[in-house]
Amino acid sequence: MMNDNELLQEYIRNIAPPNKAAIDRALEREFWLAKPRGTLGELENVAVQLAGIQNRLRPQHQHKVVVVCAGDHGVVEEKVSLYSKDVTYQQILNFEKSGGCITVLSENVGAKVILVDVGVDHDLPPHPRLVSAKIARGTNNIAKGPAMTREQAVASIITGIEVVMKEPYLDLVAAGEMGIGNTTPSSCIASVFTGMSPDEATGRGAGLDTEQVRHKVDVITRALEVNRPDPGDPLDVLAKVGGLEIGAMCGVYLGGAIRKAGIVIDGFIAAAAATLAEKFAPGVREYMIAGHKSREKAHIALLDYLKLRPLLDLGMWLGEGSGAAVAMYVCQCACEHFNKMTTLQEASITDVVL
Amino acid sequence: MMNDNELLQEYIRNIAPPNKAAIDRALEREFWLAKPRGTLGELENVAVQLAGIQNRLRPQHQHKVVVVCAGDHGVVEEKVSLYSKDVTYQQILNFEKSGGCITVLSENVGAKVILVDVGVDHDLPPHPRLVSAKIARGTNNIAKGPAMTREQAVASIITGIEVVMKEPYLDLVAAGEMGIGNTTPSSCIASVFTGMSPDEATGRGAGLDTEQVRHKVDVITRALEVNRPDPGDPLDVLAKVGGLEIGAMCGVYLGGAIRKAGIVIDGFIAAAAATLAEKFAPGVREYMIAGHKSREKAHIALLDYLKLRPLLDLGMWLGEGSGAAVAMYVCQCACEHFNKMTTLQEASITDVVL
Repeated sequence: MMNDNELLQEYIRNIAPPNKAAIDRALEREFWLAKPRGTLGELENVAVQLAGIQNRLRPQHQHKVVVVCAGDHGVVEEKVSLYSKDVTYQQILNFEKSGGCITVLSENVGAKVILVDVGVDHDLPPHPRLVSAKIARGTNNIAKGPAMTREQAVASIITGIEVVMKEPYLDLVAAGEMGIGNTTPSSCIASVFTGMSPDEATGRGAGLDTEQVRHKVDVITRALEVNRPDPGDPLDVLAKVGGLEIGAMCGVYLGGAIRKAGIVIDGFIAAAAATLAEKFAPGVREYMIAGHKSREKAHIALLDYLKLRPLLDLGMWLGEGSGAAVAMYVCQCACEHFNKMTTLQEASITDVVL
Repeated sequence: MMNDNELLQEYIRNIAPPNKAAIDRALEREFWLAKPRGTLGELENVAVQLAGIQNRLRPQHQHKVVVVCAGDHGVVEEKVSLYSKDVTYQQILNFEKSGGCITVLSENVGAKVILVDVGVDHDLPPHPRLVSAKIARGTNNIAKGPAMTREQAVASIITGIEVVMKEPYLDLVAAGEMGIGNTTPSSCIASVFTGMSPDEATGRGAGLDTEQVRHKVDVITRALEVNRPDPGDPLDVLAKVGGLEIGAMCGVYLGGAIRKAGIVIDGFIAAAAATLAEKFAPGVREYMIAGHKSREKAHIALLDYLKLRPLLDLGMWLGEGSGAAVAMYVCQCACEHFNKMTTLQEASITDVVL
């Protein structure tokens, strides 16, 4: 029987690049649709990308899933968040009742929401929407030592992959998160992979003031000094300065690529997890669509690192997957225009004459 | 009996500012929703704006209408467009069959599409989707004289208003257009109202090259010299250098405000019509939501003039109302989060502790 590490490697081997022939066929169709060429901008780009990812003549959006991964963070004891750690489980209970932003926006776009407890520091009762896969009751305080063991880190990734593998149909997938304190490990990950200083990598989280951000930079600096994560070893980075829900999000992305689904990236924490996924499986970024630009300072640096350009800039910085849920609609418009518009020929429309 | 001019003034007198008390109540609710304050950016702004516009405790998006106004342009004989004037009617026939971009994107967002022929140079057979309200078979060539009479200009506006007044329910409305050559009058309007030079006001339309744009600038310069439209008299501007469908779009906006609906503005031509509407009814801009930023050069200058900030920037420059149709979804997200999220209190979530 394979151990978890071998299982992860086996899953990663199942990721193939998007289909080049499907991309070429999609470019050809897009060229003849009944509109001046190029006038639908990102809708055209996303349609062609999804045709390649899904290897279909007609890219689909009907089966959308948002996987909200939840975990707590020992580093919250360093006062890096305005909110109590209890808010993690309180929001999960709110999501179960469809009262949260991510549940409202997901239902609005027709996406199924799956909640995954990989590390909440609270006993969550069973619920039809909740996958109970608790690996630990939160991470350890990264300002003092590693967040988790390497085994726990691998387990968090596999949890995310297997949630996605269980879906009967999947066209588009996003990972969201709930984990008070999780911009702190995300800034650590951003700093390790891009070489940004802790100061450059640290933002206001859920609303810190300038003094509080300065303290957060100190905590992040300490976390990096104490742990010395190896940028060449993504598992080392996740285990030492990551989070259980961040590992699960990384797994959701890897699983999405295995399933040939378009992967819609939310904000800063999602981008940190996406960077980890790209480190585990180079090229998986070709499955990714950056949903939006969050206000969190280092988000755009991570997207640049992944060579992704955000679709939306609506001033959103909530997390939970909220920006990705809105962006799924842009993917839907991409598919719909591509699949349902007539061609110039079908509509008997005169092409360029001048 | 009122003449058309008196009727237009009577309609305009029916436009009141958005409700200040409804805005204040909406700000109060938004403050307590179960998320860090301000984290939903434009979704929060639009929700509050729509609550004020609709004067409701819960802003609504269910009844969405896209009015696609169609007309031809005599100035096409100056070779200002890559496309034949025939494409105007060919696309209307395509829209009747739901094969066009605006019909696909409207149906996708749940908006009803109404096609209005105010000036197509072709006999369009009756169709359930088509309002036949032809005022002329296209405008005259503005490079040689006025586009239309003042009476025709007033009639085009009233046509747009009355299409909107007939809708039984209306929460959000957008005006789209089909009219080969209509960026040329739009550039004239932009130049008259903002003081931009013809060169600054002129873009690539549906894909002109640099040489062709230079010729278009010459035509626009001539149109302004020949007609000398009076920036203090919006009817003079519309009649001399406008278009029949542009007048109807202006009417759709005025009608939207009378009906207390959120008005979603599409791209460049829509912004030119919106500027006319603001000139006819100062303050109507408070009902407007700029859907997106088109690539057409002078679009953003018109939005600046109207003090509107575009929600989306997806590299779209098709027209038809396509950008507004996508942006209607952002308005839908604004309403949905506002109406369906729980408050911190309802969800028993601990507020800020640090």
